[in-house]
This record gives sequence, structure tokens and C-alpha cells, in this order.
Amino acid sequence: MNAPGFTGMRFLRLLQDTGFEGNLYPVHPKADEINGLTVYPSVSELPEIPDLVIVATQAAAVPKVLEDCAATQVPNVHVCSAGFSETGEAEGRILEDEIRQIAARGGLRVIGPNCMGFHVPSARIKMFEEVELLDGPVAFVSQSGGHAMSLLMHGPDFGVGFSKVISYGNALTLDAPDFLEYLAGDSATRVICMYLEGVRDGRRLFDLVRRTNPVKPVVIWKSGLTESGGRAAASHTGSLAGKRQVWEAFFAQTGSIRVESTREMAEVAMTLLHAKRPPGRRAVVLSGGGGNNVATGDICAEEGLELPPLSPRTREALREFVSPVNQGLTNPMDVAGVLTYQPLLRRALAILAADELIDVIVIHMAPGLFDERFAGSVAEFLAGISETSREGRVSKPVVIALDDAYPHDGTRECLREFRQAGALAYASIRRASRALRRVSDYGEFLAEAADPPGPDPSA
Amino acid sequence: MNAPGFTGMRFLRLLQDTGFEGNLYPVHPKADEINGLTVYPSVSELPEIPDLVIVATQAAAVPKVLEDCAATQVPNVHVCSAGFSETGEAEGRILEDEIRQIAARGGLRVIGPNCMGFHVPSARIKMFEEVELLDGPVAFVSQSGGHAMSLLMHGPDFGVGFSKVISYGNALTLDAPDFLEYLAGDSATRVICMYLEGVRDGRRLFDLVRRTNPVKPVVIWKSGLTESGGRAAASHTGSLAGKRQVWEAFFAQTGSIRVESTREMAEVAMTLLHAKRPPGRRAVVLSGGGGNNVATGDICAEEGLELPPLSPRTREALREFVSPVNQGLTNPMDVAGVLTYQPLLRRALAILAADELIDVIVIHMAPGLFDERFAGSVAEFLAGISETSREGRVSKPVVIALDDAYPHDGTRECLREFRQAGALAYASIRRASRALRRVSDYGEFLAEAADPPGPDPSA
Repeated sequence: MNAPGFTGMRFLRLLQDTGFEGNLYPVHPKADEINGLTVYPSVSELPEIPDLVIVATQAAAVPKVLEDCAATQVPNVHVCSAGFSETGEAEGRILEDEIRQIAARGGLRVIGPNCMGFHVPSARIKMFEEVELLDGPVAFVSQSGGHAMSLLMHGPDFGVGFSKVISYGNALTLDAPDFLEYLAGDSATRVICMYLEGVRDGRRLFDLVRRTNPVKPVVIWKSGLTESGGRAAASHTGSLAGKRQVWEAFFAQTGSIRVESTREMAEVAMTLLHAKRPPGRRAVVLSGGGGNNVATGDICAEEGLELPPLSPRTREALREFVSPVNQGLTNPMDVAGVLTYQPLLRRALAILAADELIDVIVIHMAPGLFDERFAGSVAEFLAGISETSREGRVSKPVVIALDDAYPHDGTRECLREFRQAGALAYASIRRASRALRRVSDYGEFLAEAADPPGPDPSA
Repeated sequence: MNAPGFTGMRFLRLLQDTGFEGNLYPVHPKADEINGLTVYPSVSELPEIPDLVIVATQAAAVPKVLEDCAATQVPNVHVCSAGFSETGEAEGRILEDEIRQIAARGGLRVIGPNCMGFHVPSARIKMFEEVELLDGPVAFVSQSGGHAMSLLMHGPDFGVGFSKVISYGNALTLDAPDFLEYLAGDSATRVICMYLEGVRDGRRLFDLVRRTNPVKPVVIWKSGLTESGGRAAASHTGSLAGKRQVWEAFFAQTGSIRVESTREMAEVAMTLLHAKRPPGRRAVVLSGGGGNNVATGDICAEEGLELPPLSPRTREALREFVSPVNQGLTNPMDVAGVLTYQPLLRRALAILAADELIDVIVIHMAPGLFDERFAGSVAEFLAGISETSREGRVSKPVVIALDDAYPHDGTRECLREFRQAGALAYASIRRASRALRRVSDYGEFLAEAADPPGPDPSA
């Protein structure tokens, strides 16, 4: 992050604006007062030893500040400043070596340089002006400040709140495994997300992920595995992105959940938080429209969701009110009439939930269903579904996938309504299938790990 | 399409509402007058032989109407009615056999049954109330009425207008190859799109696509190639979806452009119409933000767009005003400061356009760049680019890919503005890369076909 505006003043203002309750001490060699606070000329002259020093000076001034921090025995330092090894220039590399030595000598724990530091809603610490302080059980360890911002901005849309978000840039002394180790033991954190470009101690990361993942799912976006992506990673955080095969083995052996964007991260986190336990991958999809139904069948299969044919018993029960004409009793089911008439939908859900070959029920519907034409509301629709669930007739997850075949300006709003009402909802059948598949793979990995194949007397 | 409301009255109203200029004759056994028009009891009692009869009766009444059409020597019949072989029931199959025999005996050309027929903006024939009558050079032959509606609804967003859209359902007498043959010779059509579930005469389709594609690009969405998609196709239009390998060979040998949704179809059509000739796949991406840049590098590579490192000469020229710090001179380039300052952007475009290793320039930017913060407008931004182009300094395609890392409600509006101003713009770097790659593959296929590898004296 070397965009303009990431100054000490900005960090100070953010902490003041959120109502951070700890003591705040601006440090500046020349000013007397900033925003109503007394300014100190150096860290060593502060009235107490701070828990954290945030450094946002020019790169060249960082060594002097760190020396001061070490002399004062400051425990934690966040260096926001950029201009180190990520520049690819000799000067930056030399400067990074210098501050590494200072940190090592002084026993400093350094987050950064070249990063945005912390976002901790419960402590009223905010990383960006543009994001909400939404508390919740998801942690994010990100080598990119931009991706941290992106996930923080997606959070409210997906009902995902955060325990700790950490942007750590060049990883001078504290690297991804250190943060992961902390979060594994953090009671406020239930799901751990990571964005990684490169990791120095891959073995340690592997061991930590393997140990942590069965207790708290670890969701990882590993970037830079293509030629052009790897080149970009090298000049972003000076990282060696590594080989694709190595990372594929990493995911296969740790069982951690692989994603490819912050949006997918938010969707997977939402899915993990919502389901009591990861559902299996056998789904039934209630859809509307013939061609659309064919596309839905293809998309689910491509994303690895299984759509088993309905069992004879289920077909028989549905046949009382679903016409077999035009894919009414296939899977995906073309049942526009059932989707738009609650009494039938509830009957269908109860029947499908009783089918042992089905793990999850997906309602695939156009956001336009809630336009004036159908005069129904998201709230009424969901009330019907949850009433059926409360009656104990539907014990399986029922999720909503909005149909994106037609452009619709209200999609994001419609999703937000669903999510605020407590439903698991996705913007498209592809996004739903992908997230459900990732989470069911996770559940399967855990089940196999708990019950390993083959004889193992020690298990 | 067996949703309610696809009645004869609906077709009549649509034709009246659009101001269709031909004679309209409602046919009904009992009514006297409908919507101010005299009603006739049967086709044979009309005052003239119509060019087209649209049949929207119950399935069981269709044979009688077709007999009447045959007796009157009506050249063209569109049977909207559903309830034939697509039901999978014996009754429907028998009925379809019956109307096939009637059509054969009477020499009728039948579109359908189980379909929406025609949408021809230049003739003021409209398929759905919800869509615009937007005339243009793109034709669409669709086995699904829903997908026809979807592409028609996407059209205006992508600046794509239509010559003829044909929804043909169960393909009783007229099948996809018949429509393709017509469109190949239709002067109003420059790009031909197709949505196929199954084709009876695959060989004829293959020959026609191979012949047509070099003259008018043929863009095909072939669905039903997965297990669950194939099952759905069988019960949608009674189609045999075929084998994946066969269709892969079809695409490889015809050079037709493969897509996987109507939205992608619209994006590819837009790209084909915009570029004078298909650009190559070597791109430079001007982007902003470090982590975002790594993701961009990965996405372009995954979608098959090549991002070559910048040549020493280009780097040298850019270095005069672009900092090498943080990926400024890599590809993708992290140059937020250049994107937001027109004089620098114009200089950069001129330099990059002169680089012989680059075929296309992609500007990857957040739609938020046009929010109040930057106080610029899409129009000003484009004026700058096109001025540079007019000066002859940029002869390569410059395309816009909006950054979708952050949720933004104005994305669709921002894209529409770009497109209305004549720019080639996409909703994300992934969508841009995919469409550009599809079109560059097409260009490469044509080039190789024109100049086949190896000695061929007859070429």
C-alpha cells in the first residue's frame, strides 16, 4: 500500500472517530498538539510504554523510530510505511535488512512494513474509513491491505462480522504462521481466513493449518501461482509464490478450504457459520424455466454438486401436486408454480427433506419473483420456509440461489434481505454450488480424518 | 415454455403494441371481435393466405389447426403450444408424431412446438413484453425461450441489438441448421449466436457452421453435457445432448466460439462487433493496488490472456513518469496514480500502443473512481482516451474492465455509460479476459485456416 493518505494522522483520526477507549499519543518531532492531543517528540518520551506503536513515516525514517521503540521496550510495532524490499531496488532491500536487525536486537514484534495493520471491531480499531466496524467470529490474515479492505467491505453483505483482521505486508518478523497460531487460540474467532502470496516457513504453516483446521476451518486464498500472478506477487510483497503442485498437496493434506477471491471467502465463511455442520454434496434444486434448468444442471455438475435423480418414493409423493410435464420431477426440478405458491412449496420441502439421498435443498429463483408481479415479500417467503422447519418437517439446510440469467438491479438488495432474515443466500447458482461444494469437501475431510480408511489400531 | 399466459391473445397484443404494420387476423372458433379486430373461425376462412400462423391452443387442438393450415397452403407456422415429446409421456410423443405427419404431408414449415417463435425488431415483431425492440446485427437461434429472453434482456446493457431471434423448441420440421443456413445469407446479420441442447442432423450443422463461421462468427452455447444437465435437456426439449468429446471436436474443427451463458454470449458479441478484427491475446493491464494486481495476473493467466513482461524500451519510456516502486513497471502494472490523472494516462497509452509485443490494452479500474472522490466522469475519461486514439498515437484496442473486488451498486450503470460512449467495457477482469480470449482464439483460427501449416499447393 503506497497510495497517498496512509499517514499517521489518518490512523489517529480513525481511532478517534471510532471511539477507541485506550490512551492515544501522537508522536511528531515538531508539532505541539494534534486533534486536541498532546504531541510527543519521540516514543521514548511518552508518559507510558504503549501496547502498540504505529509507524507511518517515510521509509528512511523507520530505522530511527524502531531504535527508539526498542530502547523503550515497546512490545508491538506496526510499520505501515512502504519502500522496502517490495520495490525490488537495492536501497529498499538494504533498508529492510537494517530494520530487521534492529527488530531482532531489540526483541520487537513487527507487523509490516508495507501494510495496514489491524482491524478489531470489539476494540474499536478500524483499518479503513470506508468499512463498518462489524464484530463477529471471522478472522482474516492478509498479505494485502487491499484484499483486507475488500473482505471487510463484503462482510456486511454476507452477514459476516470480524474478530481480527490483520494486514501484514512484507512480514519482517511476524509472518502468517504467527498470526494463525494466535487466532487458533483466540476464543472470539471461529473461522480463519488467509490471503497468502508467499510464506517463509512453509513447514510451520503446514503444521499449524493441519492442527487448526479440524477445530476452526481455515479458508485460504493462495495467489501468484500463475506466471503473471507470480511476477506480480514478487513485486508486491517481495514474495516467492511457490509451485502450484506444492500448494495443491498443501490443500489436499491439510484439508483447508481453498478459495480464489475475497468474495468467495465471504461466501464460504457465511456458509460455515450458518450450517450447524457441513452438509454433504447431494443437492436437489427447485428451479423455474426449461433452458434455465438445463444450465443449472450443468453448472451444479461443473462445480461438483451432485444432483441425484429423485427416488421413486419422492417422485410419487410429489406427483400429487407437481406435474411430470417439463422436468417437474427431474433434478433440477422445473417447478415455477411451486416456487411462487407457499402451500405447495412447504409440501415440497417437507417431502424432499425426508429423502435420504438428499443433503441440501437449493431454491433457485429470480430476484424478480419479489417484484410487484408476484406481490410476495422475502420476509413472507422465508417465514413459510422456517415455519416448515420449526414444525420439524425440514431438518436439512434450505438455501437460496438467486437466478442471474436476467439482469436485475435489485439482486444485492434482495440478497441482503434474505441474509438479514437469517437465510443462507447466494447471488447465483454457480456461487451457491461452489461454496456448498467447498464446505462439503471440508466436512468430508474431517469425517475421513476422524475415521481413517484402513485398519489403524491406534485411531 | 408452459408457463401461464403464453396465449394467442398475448401474441396479438404484442404485435399491436409494437405497431406491427402487416395485417393481423385473430382466429377463434367462438369470438366475433378481439381488440378491435374481426375474428375468423378458422385459418381456411381468412380473407388472404397469411405469411405466418401462430398457434397457441391446447396441445390436443394443434393437429386440427395444422390440417387447416395445410389445406390453406400457409407457408409458415409457429406452434407455441407445449405438451408434446418434451413431457416424456406417451400421449405427448404420439401427438408430436401426429403433427409431424400432418406437416410432412402438407409441406408445412413449422417452428416449434413448445417455443416462443420470433423476435425481429426491424419488422416490429416482439417475443416478450419485458424486452426492448433493439435492432442490430446479432442473430440468436435458441432452443430455449427463456434463454432467448435472457439474451434479449442483456442486449441493451452490452449495446447489442438483434436482427432475428428465434426460439424453436422441439424442432418438429425446422431445426437449428435450417435457421443457421438462412442467417448465413441474411444481410442484416453479422454475428450468429446459438443455444443448443441437441441437434438431429449433427453432420449438417457441422458443415454449415464450418462454412459460415469464417464469414460471420458463430457463437455457440452447447448445454446438457454434464450428467445432471443432460437429464434436464432430455426432459426440456426431448433432446439427446450428446457426448462432451464430440462437441469438443466440433468446436476445435469449426473454429466456432464456445460460451457458457447468455451473458457471455452478449459479451463476446459485443467484443466481435466492436473490434475491426479480432485482437491477439497479448495484453497489458493497467491496474491499481498491490494484492489486486497479483489477483489480476492470476485471473488473466487462468483465462488464457497473456501478459508479457514489458519490453526494456517500453519500461524506459514509462520510467520517466511511472515509479518502479511496487509493480509500476510490471505487467499487470500497479499504476493507480496514472489511471486517475489523464495527462499521464494518455502518455502511458501512447507508449504501450507502440510496443509490438502488446495486442490489447486493458484498463482495470474501480467503478468508484467515478464517485465524488475523484470528481471525474466516464465521459471525460473516455474523451481523453479517444483523443489519444484520434491523434493516431493509440492504434490498439483499449478496453475497460471494472474492478469487482469491492461491492459497488453503480457497476451496471457505470458499464452502460462506458458502452453508450462507444467503449468496450466489461464488469470484471475475469469477464474481460474470457471474452478477449474467445475472440482472439477465433482470430487465430481464421488466420491459420487462411494460411494452413505445412505445404498445401491448392491453398
